[in-house]
Amino acid sequence: MRAQKWKHLIDQRGDHVVIRSIARVALFIVLSFGPGSAVAQNDPLPSWNDGAAKRSITDFVARVTTPGGTAFIPPEQRIATFDNDGTLWCEQPMYFQFAFALDRIKAMAPQHPEWKTTQPFKAILGKDTKALEASGEKGLLQVMAATHAGMTTEQFSKAVTDWIATARHPRFNRPYTELVYQPMLELLAYLRGNGFKTFVVSGGGVEFMRPWMEKVYGIPPEQVVGSSGDVKFGIGADGKPELTKLAKIEFIDDGPGKPAGINRFIGRRPVFAFGNSDGDLQMLQWTTAGAGARFAGIVRHTDADREYAYDRQSKIGKLDKALDEAGARGWTVVDMKKDWKQVFAD
Amino acid sequence: MRAQKWKHLIDQRGDHVVIRSIARVALFIVLSFGPGSAVAQNDPLPSWNDGAAKRSITDFVARVTTPGGTAFIPPEQRIATFDNDGTLWCEQPMYFQFAFALDRIKAMAPQHPEWKTTQPFKAILGKDTKALEASGEKGLLQVMAATHAGMTTEQFSKAVTDWIATARHPRFNRPYTELVYQPMLELLAYLRGNGFKTFVVSGGGVEFMRPWMEKVYGIPPEQVVGSSGDVKFGIGADGKPELTKLAKIEFIDDGPGKPAGINRFIGRRPVFAFGNSDGDLQMLQWTTAGAGARFAGIVRHTDADREYAYDRQSKIGKLDKALDEAGARGWTVVDMKKDWKQVFAD
Repeated sequence: MRAQKWKHLIDQRGDHVVIRSIARVALFIVLSFGPGSAVAQNDPLPSWNDGAAKRSITDFVARVTTPGGTAFIPPEQRIATFDNDGTLWCEQPMYFQFAFALDRIKAMAPQHPEWKTTQPFKAILGKDTKALEASGEKGLLQVMAATHAGMTTEQFSKAVTDWIATARHPRFNRPYTELVYQPMLELLAYLRGNGFKTFVVSGGGVEFMRPWMEKVYGIPPEQVVGSSGDVKFGIGADGKPELTKLAKIEFIDDGPGKPAGINRFIGRRPVFAFGNSDGDLQMLQWTTAGAGARFAGIVRHTDADREYAYDRQSKIGKLDKALDEAGARGWTVVDMKKDWKQVFAD
Repeated sequence: MRAQKWKHLIDQRGDHVVIRSIARVALFIVLSFGPGSAVAQNDPLPSWNDGAAKRSITDFVARVTTPGGTAFIPPEQRIATFDNDGTLWCEQPMYFQFAFALDRIKAMAPQHPEWKTTQPFKAILGKDTKALEASGEKGLLQVMAATHAGMTTEQFSKAVTDWIATARHPRFNRPYTELVYQPMLELLAYLRGNGFKTFVVSGGGVEFMRPWMEKVYGIPPEQVVGSSGDVKFGIGADGKPELTKLAKIEFIDDGPGKPAGINRFIGRRPVFAFGNSDGDLQMLQWTTAGAGARFAGIVRHTDADREYAYDRQSKIGKLDKALDEAGARGWTVVDMKKDWKQVFAD
């Protein structure tokens, strides 16, 4: 397109109209892409208040992207990993994937009359929170097996896509994908704009996350690392190959599983990592133990008004050991209330 | 840079010198990036002889990258997967990873005096091929455990890097990384130049492949899918976190494992896949069963002079069912002898 425009201008031969047109186009190019351009001067993190947290991010990025600088990191090594629940989107009052599972149980109940009298399904259908909690880990696994296995990967993907388009958060009454943190969306874009490759490394199920993350975070499926169950390859009734999800857990991408997952899926140590709980501690340790400049950040939930306030004693997103280690090692701790102008995306 | 150049031209104000300079630059832009450009006319696959195989590739790429065309595939969906052994590099007279394992046994022998009297190690150290073969799968697993586990991921990566830099193929007396197929290197670059993301999906160990593939294939670690063993996260004697490789096999990325591996690591169905053996059949089935334009290719080893000739009866790289299915479904079968001007990279 640009080449054709130039060709058109040249076809008119040299007169001052052409010169002025060229000057205007050239000025546009200089303004848009030049070194001291308006674009570069814009704040890349407008939802972050000025302060130590924001500065630690922009300082790090400036240092590692300055060619010839002592902290320079070549683009192919600019791997940035982000936890998801509580780091990129809200995780209260329950992990959103579990909300999906509960809704699936309700949707599937007509095909399962036996659930009316069997725990933990009976508790879910009767909204009996106490009985559901009493079913413990065994109940949780039963719920996950019933809702996450026994179907093809494509059927599961469709179930997630349908749910995410319609379900709403009980407190905020908004779609779950609107409860992503605006400052973190800006951070993802800012890093990518500086040559980083951004990955999600989450304890959540990888097939629960992939259907919507590209649209919401700009992170493609192949850059989403998560927990997974076994799948079985076979030829379906229609003669086409298919992958069926089995109830067997294959990999838990949480705690010490995060460095293992990074090793397995990415095969390269991140230079930048963000989490929000003790489940991210080992990922942050693994990231910062590498040679050269490294960044570790923690989102601390301090804002009961705009989101939630929880850390050391929380059942979900417990932040205790990792908070101590952040203090000892000088990792960046983001105080949601203080550091973020805006919490959720518009 | 370009913006500055324009600015410099404009500073001189409008005279015919400027016009001529601009005309030259514009002509350069048109020639370099225009639709019928010299660059586009260059053969992107110079080591491929003209013929049906080459044409099927260039036709496919042209069709799926033509905006507005019925077969157009958006760039983010242009996922291309390649088997490695026998597809991107040679796999005879044994998988190169096994040659690495045998060399490691020899290198580690001084620390293992017991190997002098224990099979299968005794057979390897005494070059007793018969006894080694007699040790069967149990022996193979023992060799892999001894050479691929009980060390950190970084120690293993270093062992691979050292070996690949020094070891030589018994017949060709060249480093193994020179026994990659020049036509396939061209194909990888051609696809990437057309917006494809290229992945390796191999039965080989993922940690054996990653240390050299970026340099040799231009494929970064995070785009290498392979078999893997469990790793264990811990804090090492130096107080730093480390991942230790365990002897437990976690995932075999071969046969039906390839679609499973693609699902797990990439999370998107490829539109283009290349293999060379029955171990790639399910990947090719999975790829071609998707909606829209799809490409499946098979490298057939027909060149005993320049490389090797083997297919239906081969112990390594057996190509039997996949060859039948290629015929039935019209997949591209590359006849190495006929279709490739040159086999190995220079």
